[in-house]
Amino acid sequence: MPESPGSPSFGDRVASAVAGTGPLCAGIDPSAELLAAWNLTDDARGVLEFGMRCVEAFAGVVPVIKPQVAFFERHGSAGLAALESVLAEARDAGLVVIADAKRGDIGSTVAAYASAWLGPDSPLAADAVTALPYLGLGSLQPLFDLAGAHGRGVVVVVRSSNPEGRALQEAVTDRGKGPSVEDMLLGQIAALNHGGAVPPGTVGVVVGATLQPSGFPLPELGGVVLAPGVGAQGGGAAEVAALFAGCPPGSVVASASRSLLASGPDVTALAASARQMRDEMGDALR
Amino acid sequence: MPESPGSPSFGDRVASAVAGTGPLCAGIDPSAELLAAWNLTDDARGVLEFGMRCVEAFAGVVPVIKPQVAFFERHGSAGLAALESVLAEARDAGLVVIADAKRGDIGSTVAAYASAWLGPDSPLAADAVTALPYLGLGSLQPLFDLAGAHGRGVVVVVRSSNPEGRALQEAVTDRGKGPSVEDMLLGQIAALNHGGAVPPGTVGVVVGATLQPSGFPLPELGGVVLAPGVGAQGGGAAEVAALFAGCPPGSVVASASRSLLASGPDVTALAASARQMRDEMGDALR
Repeated sequence: MPESPGSPSFGDRVASAVAGTGPLCAGIDPSAELLAAWNLTDDARGVLEFGMRCVEAFAGVVPVIKPQVAFFERHGSAGLAALESVLAEARDAGLVVIADAKRGDIGSTVAAYASAWLGPDSPLAADAVTALPYLGLGSLQPLFDLAGAHGRGVVVVVRSSNPEGRALQEAVTDRGKGPSVEDMLLGQIAALNHGGAVPPGTVGVVVGATLQPSGFPLPELGGVVLAPGVGAQGGGAAEVAALFAGCPPGSVVASASRSLLASGPDVTALAASARQMRDEMGDALR
Repeated sequence: MPESPGSPSFGDRVASAVAGTGPLCAGIDPSAELLAAWNLTDDARGVLEFGMRCVEAFAGVVPVIKPQVAFFERHGSAGLAALESVLAEARDAGLVVIADAKRGDIGSTVAAYASAWLGPDSPLAADAVTALPYLGLGSLQPLFDLAGAHGRGVVVVVRSSNPEGRALQEAVTDRGKGPSVEDMLLGQIAALNHGGAVPPGTVGVVVGATLQPSGFPLPELGGVVLAPGVGAQGGGAAEVAALFAGCPPGSVVASASRSLLASGPDVTALAASARQMRDEMGDALR
């Protein structure tokens, strides 16, 4: 494995943030349902207020936040402007931000997404962005390159826990003789993290915590594992421990959204829930 | 196959638009390179001007346009506001618009993307949106439902011609005993278009024109086939004819972006190129 360059990689930054607080990524999901529950209007102003309260509640309590871009995009350019303000506030608060945008394309188009979400001068810039690999992991290379150049990251959705995703992600490559799609991608991502072209820890993955282990040994990934489904969504402690056994400290981060956000809109109550959930996740992932 | 409901489906609308002009979908791709070539600034104002000139050039000349969302998103909320103006102008000009956003997610998140791109009151509403099926076709159901309810469409990227996509899309489902991922998806989409839950023609696909035919018979899809790579990108007439043989009239639409946009910024020259390319595509797909 090559030496890390001077500045810390995305993986390094997540690991030190997790060491400081605990392994929880708090979602920011201003859905119509949650806006109503928080007595906020279902418009750009509402999602702005929702996001700002989340940043206030989560700063210093959790290491990583994950705004769900779709709920901002739902309100068009005004919603995206709200997201820009939330991202700026989160940056100032010292939170590591993963923009959950699940983008994917090829060539100059994926380079444009990279510029939008990882470019140093972009109003939408985050510490990392999530991506979908349907067009092949190689199609996402412009994202990896720009992320690596700025200590940022790309979190690739590889193993999703929704039942509709299993048939595709478990399909067998190389005319039925190779690894599964998900294991092929995990192997390609490990090769990127260990290959020297980008700093180790630049490329992370989403792996649903309710899944059984697959053939690829996750401790060899060399990047962040974002794990929805620990705790509230049903991943029991024993299953989670088995799935992530041996992963380096601070590399596995449990992700929670609705189960956590139900504690709002009171900022103190939301922060208290985040603290409790963060500690529970720390126990579950130990 | 069930009767079409009273209002035409997305597939019906594309077929009648293609019958009027010809089978070309003109991309609107304001990349940094093309903005420079058109002497426009690389900012939200530049992409707005680029998009408006495209609408002016393409209205009445081609049936379908496809703004590439990434190039607007690259300029943040201001870029998305520019896209909203371009979409409104295209609507007024009577063009069928496919927002090339390649979105994908699950549950309430994908419902939020549906609302953004297909919702009747959304400033970003288009006639159809492109989607990525990595989380399974079923995960996109909220897109299909909202599209179907409003005579709109979803165009799912199934067979991409970039080499990095082949291993995943050709992987074999059901432990190596089922159809390939791409044929599984094509079959599921055909079942949707013929199943009665959404109007026939609601769900289309992207199939690269430079590929060999796969196992699924495309004439049975029941939806629009958007085909990048006819002509300029290298799909020869004989290969294209073989790939799309038997598809219903007006269901296959060739997509061209850079090869066409290189004729700008002069609107008259751009329109002339679109007219010529549209006629060539008509010949290639006959």
